[in-house]
Amino acid sequence: MTTAKVVAFGGGHGLSASLRALRRCAPELDLDITAVVTVGDDGGSSGRLRAERGGLPPGDLRQALVALAGDHPSTRRSAGLFQHRFAEVPASPVADGLAGHAVGNLVLHGLMELLGDPVAALEHAGAMLGAVGRVLPMSCEPVGIEARVRGVDPDRPDEVRTVTGQHQVAVTTGRVESLRLTPAEPRACPEAVTAIGLADWLIFGPGSWYTSVLPHLLVPELAEAIISSPARRLVTLNLAAEKETLGLSVADHLAALRWYLPELKVDFVLADSKAVGDPEPVERAAESLGARLVLAPVAVTDGTPRHDPAALGAALVPVLGADR
Amino acid sequence: MTTAKVVAFGGGHGLSASLRALRRCAPELDLDITAVVTVGDDGGSSGRLRAERGGLPPGDLRQALVALAGDHPSTRRSAGLFQHRFAEVPASPVADGLAGHAVGNLVLHGLMELLGDPVAALEHAGAMLGAVGRVLPMSCEPVGIEARVRGVDPDRPDEVRTVTGQHQVAVTTGRVESLRLTPAEPRACPEAVTAIGLADWLIFGPGSWYTSVLPHLLVPELAEAIISSPARRLVTLNLAAEKETLGLSVADHLAALRWYLPELKVDFVLADSKAVGDPEPVERAAESLGARLVLAPVAVTDGTPRHDPAALGAALVPVLGADR
Repeated sequence: MTTAKVVAFGGGHGLSASLRALRRCAPELDLDITAVVTVGDDGGSSGRLRAERGGLPPGDLRQALVALAGDHPSTRRSAGLFQHRFAEVPASPVADGLAGHAVGNLVLHGLMELLGDPVAALEHAGAMLGAVGRVLPMSCEPVGIEARVRGVDPDRPDEVRTVTGQHQVAVTTGRVESLRLTPAEPRACPEAVTAIGLADWLIFGPGSWYTSVLPHLLVPELAEAIISSPARRLVTLNLAAEKETLGLSVADHLAALRWYLPELKVDFVLADSKAVGDPEPVERAAESLGARLVLAPVAVTDGTPRHDPAALGAALVPVLGADR
Repeated sequence: MTTAKVVAFGGGHGLSASLRALRRCAPELDLDITAVVTVGDDGGSSGRLRAERGGLPPGDLRQALVALAGDHPSTRRSAGLFQHRFAEVPASPVADGLAGHAVGNLVLHGLMELLGDPVAALEHAGAMLGAVGRVLPMSCEPVGIEARVRGVDPDRPDEVRTVTGQHQVAVTTGRVESLRLTPAEPRACPEAVTAIGLADWLIFGPGSWYTSVLPHLLVPELAEAIISSPARRLVTLNLAAEKETLGLSVADHLAALRWYLPELKVDFVLADSKAVGDPEPVERAAESLGARLVLAPVAVTDGTPRHDPAALGAALVPVLGADR
């Protein structure tokens, strides 16, 4: 069995679940994992760093690194440090600029300043965490996310407004009608383009569809690389609609992929049997992308709409392992 | 040859030079190095962290860790990250709480918050840097440094004032008449007491005499452990008077050790041949501590009053290696 090169696209918790699932099948399937991560975050610790000091927002990159961190107690502890968030100190006599920042965000920002190259910074951070894979930004420049949204104001359900910023788009309760990046055509991270070209598998989702999954398709060089890659493609669907996709059915998620990248062909769509409900419309939407729908129980068992990495990993094994 | 356990006391640049010298002789002499570091800093990045968020000031601990960082390119790079200081971002539209902080200070502060134990935090940070030795704080609680200083105001040369805080004491141009810690009798770090009891060598200096070298002698449990340790003792003298010791001769530095810990016996005093000038008074001061004066060229060759780690290491080899 030769190594299978897997590129997983996304950001935030969705990508983290996907990577945690992939690393579980990595030994059995001999996977070489690369994460390609959105760089549109403008909220929280990442947003502050980006606004105050410039550079890539580190939060999604950090989450991906931590998801791939090694199992040794020492690298687990470093991963805990990366995730540790400085709390407000209520008794502090002075304004405290650290409160709210995750230590890993500061480490990544420091490495990017020090080395002047996000890819080298991520490589070093990966080594610090004993990461079992590689994390790359989708672009080496931060991007903005902008959406035209219908019904932002519930009192004016037909009005379409421009919503600016990943955070605002992620929490909008209107219906996203179109999405664009600023700049409209950012350069792709060259190492991400290369990884896509060499990949055996490209995996999209789960994750916030408009702010973590679709942005990759809007980067022209990534879109081109995705279309021309000889890799097989898998889409992992979400378990529940996020705020930004309220009113969007599971089948609509697949239609959105096709809307933003009409040439996209997909081989497999993986969805949770329960979350999908009636599989028929999803099956049809999958077929329109050229894909076969695979249903499996991939949610955590406590009823919250989160993927269980072990269950997702178990569902991925027969898919990624077929024909090998 | 058995391993020789060396405990080096100090803080800041002086301790860093001592540790860099020791690590150079470590392979030849099979040294096991422990640094015991002052925790009185209240200036700069450390002072801000301490004032705003509490806990031990991390700067001197960071310097000691970096001095012991491994030689592998990856650990050298992590050491560079620890030393990287966030610059002011003049164009920033928002006040930036990171400017001035060294990344390593934030990592150490985060580890101490996360693990709740400075010794465990330093052990983990040492592992991150592949450190060739161990770094311990002299106390697990931060201390204050207070001095009675004569002639702070040059217009009133005889007036004695209380100068508070390590930073103020370090930069005073008056003559320090007495030194005390707040609390007056801080608890020692238990691991430091143990290390002193098991040591073959205790090394004091170089460094800011009142703020980095003498404070250890004012911690009762450390003083007791130092006196009762079977280890041999070496004092490395400074190359030039720091601001706080203007008017204090090289011989006076040795007298100060005796003043604050009258029971202290010393085996060797190492000094730079050029910096000492006429060796006679230094020899006499060394003898009064029970020590033999060793003169060697240990300064950098550019004329600045800094120890050259290679030269200091070369001078330490015959001293630490005798009788083995």
